[in-house]
Amino acid sequence: MGKNAIVGQSGGPTAVINSSLAGVVKNAFDRKIPKVYGMRYGVKSLVELNVIDMADYIMEEIDFELLKRTPSSFLGSCRFKLPLPDENEEIYKIIFNNLKKLNIGYFFYIGGNDSMDTVMKLSKYGQMVNSDIRFMGVPKTIDNDLEISDHCPGYGSAAKYIAATTKELILDADVYDTKAACIVEVMGRNAGWLAGAAALSRGVDCDGPDGIFLPEAKFDIDIFVTKIAERLKTGSVLMVVAEGIKLEDGRYISELGSDLNIVDAFGHRMLTGASRYLAETVNHRLGVKTRSIEFGTMQRAAAHIISRVDMTEAFQVGSAAVTAAWEGQTNKVIVLKRVSNDPYICVTDIVDVTKVANVEKKVPLDWITPSGDDVTHEFIKYATPLIQAELTPFMVNGMPRHITIASKDKQRGRN
Amino acid sequence: MGKNAIVGQSGGPTAVINSSLAGVVKNAFDRKIPKVYGMRYGVKSLVELNVIDMADYIMEEIDFELLKRTPSSFLGSCRFKLPLPDENEEIYKIIFNNLKKLNIGYFFYIGGNDSMDTVMKLSKYGQMVNSDIRFMGVPKTIDNDLEISDHCPGYGSAAKYIAATTKELILDADVYDTKAACIVEVMGRNAGWLAGAAALSRGVDCDGPDGIFLPEAKFDIDIFVTKIAERLKTGSVLMVVAEGIKLEDGRYISELGSDLNIVDAFGHRMLTGASRYLAETVNHRLGVKTRSIEFGTMQRAAAHIISRVDMTEAFQVGSAAVTAAWEGQTNKVIVLKRVSNDPYICVTDIVDVTKVANVEKKVPLDWITPSGDDVTHEFIKYATPLIQAELTPFMVNGMPRHITIASKDKQRGRN
Repeated sequence: MGKNAIVGQSGGPTAVINSSLAGVVKNAFDRKIPKVYGMRYGVKSLVELNVIDMADYIMEEIDFELLKRTPSSFLGSCRFKLPLPDENEEIYKIIFNNLKKLNIGYFFYIGGNDSMDTVMKLSKYGQMVNSDIRFMGVPKTIDNDLEISDHCPGYGSAAKYIAATTKELILDADVYDTKAACIVEVMGRNAGWLAGAAALSRGVDCDGPDGIFLPEAKFDIDIFVTKIAERLKTGSVLMVVAEGIKLEDGRYISELGSDLNIVDAFGHRMLTGASRYLAETVNHRLGVKTRSIEFGTMQRAAAHIISRVDMTEAFQVGSAAVTAAWEGQTNKVIVLKRVSNDPYICVTDIVDVTKVANVEKKVPLDWITPSGDDVTHEFIKYATPLIQAELTPFMVNGMPRHITIASKDKQRGRN
Repeated sequence: MGKNAIVGQSGGPTAVINSSLAGVVKNAFDRKIPKVYGMRYGVKSLVELNVIDMADYIMEEIDFELLKRTPSSFLGSCRFKLPLPDENEEIYKIIFNNLKKLNIGYFFYIGGNDSMDTVMKLSKYGQMVNSDIRFMGVPKTIDNDLEISDHCPGYGSAAKYIAATTKELILDADVYDTKAACIVEVMGRNAGWLAGAAALSRGVDCDGPDGIFLPEAKFDIDIFVTKIAERLKTGSVLMVVAEGIKLEDGRYISELGSDLNIVDAFGHRMLTGASRYLAETVNHRLGVKTRSIEFGTMQRAAAHIISRVDMTEAFQVGSAAVTAAWEGQTNKVIVLKRVSNDPYICVTDIVDVTKVANVEKKVPLDWITPSGDDVTHEFIKYATPLIQAELTPFMVNGMPRHITIASKDKQRGRN
């Protein structure tokens, strides 16, 4: 009897993280790996041994298709940092004991750079105790901040949502001839990949945002307000800012509110968010109508407008991880390698997980315009292939149909 | 030579308001009305005589299809209340003089109950001065608060966006096993049609929000917090509130922030919004992680996920207005009349604009559960047909393609 596999999801969800799960499970089923377990809520489940048998939930081909179209993490997720084995060996003993109970030979973890830290630590401990389990990382993050990988599954779909929604909001902002300023805030604490994606709204039918501000460039409030004042002369203004934009002295714009003692209903200092703070500032200084819009968790959950390229690549990295583990690899992560940009061709590759864990990849400074308020053509060339093509949701009664553990349990009277 | 037509758009935009414009223009072209003018920024354009010739912009069939798929108001909009003729006859003289210059025989105005006020006033003045211009209203509003009409074009698409996005956010909110409360705010100052639409997220794969709060029901903060505390025992919570929820004493929740002296960075009292205020309150009282999400202008601009039923009906009311005017009607508005719910069959009808202008239709109180935290099956039965079916955007280079006056001008070197 062969060894079993186990797969988990970790960190913030994306619109296509379940496509990677589908890739892992499909390949594992195809290889007749006897059992494929799913970790409920990430690696924590291995402490409590809270797992499901994937075959109970993904029973036929339509289930794979539904899984690809379901946002958020099907298995549940966690933000849990494993201690070092010297700090707390006990937890490793519990985890490896549970992995042994389940007769695990293949371990797959879908996540960002923090999750790759988990893969790395488990691999290392596995080596120490002569475990034959193969540990593989599968990349995902809307932030696109993973090292080595050309880009990261999850990014393309978030970028597509951001660009398409920005495009719609620009039309909406232009509707009145009374002028107003709209400030849109996009996720990205340290890297501006998502904010930059707003530039993809540009085309013959849309001039795009009037400015795009990334955390990588220094942000100057006076210049920002002056630019808005200048552009208001000819029409309404829409600016896109990353949540993590910072002043030259390193302070986040989102923190300035609390510096200035914005207090909430209970007298607590309140974090206002960058766009909200800037909208207030612009309104105060220019006396113009302002609006602040945050894309919130919609930008990582909008499975109804995903990039087909992204979805396919998410599936591929999951599947490639199984192939690699099957062929004997461990302590590795699958990455994406762009072979050609035009035509766009991208393949998977295998690298040491240590090269990816805990590192953040930022937007190259020469992909930001000298004035710091936009991305260059290089950025556009890089990002455009990643938002191509669509995947239609399965629409049932006017709504996208999803697959969930709870609904499957209910169907089978397991409630 | 026959008389010309003019069409305008007014009030807040919707995802399908341009489908009504397409309906007007298509029917007018088909009837060989010599010129079809478009008002730039609503009725104000008749004071300044700022109009376009629709034939310069809608030149072939694909332009109609693009127009249907373009959110926001193609012609631009305004929020402009005409004075009564006794208050200021001068403005009427200017408008009617300009209408005469353009040889207008047919006047179409696409808008909500405020815009119907404009149609009514112009009709009345027209009667006073023996004008032969026929004035017709074409309904649109995401708020669905127009009297007499079974429902209103624009609502179905906003409802579909709200339900689909709520469904995605519920999955996202459930991703961690640490519990949190998410409060989603939906538009609707006085009527809860949009908030109620969040209930359409329910299905075999989704239990829907844990509570839906409409402006029509009295809102009690203590009960709200207690409900969240109760539900947190079994998992994360997602509540949907209308922006206009009110306490029993009539105060808006969104105003409580300023009562409590929430001040912004400049010491101004700040309007927090209902969801933000409630998220802070829940966090303060229960010590649980909270998140506030506002759908903002996305809910009226998300043309990438419109309801096909809504789009078709928006086109029909535009087209029906032209037929009615052609046949001699004036001072009227086209409404929708549901002939049958199952199967859903809906036709257009013609009513006096005076019956619709300045009136707000609210959600019937018996469509809200006795506990005031959800809508009943009657609401679901009413709203479900309105979100059915889809219309694919024309995707070009990964983005929905739109049609705009500016881009058409640019194409023809009119810039």
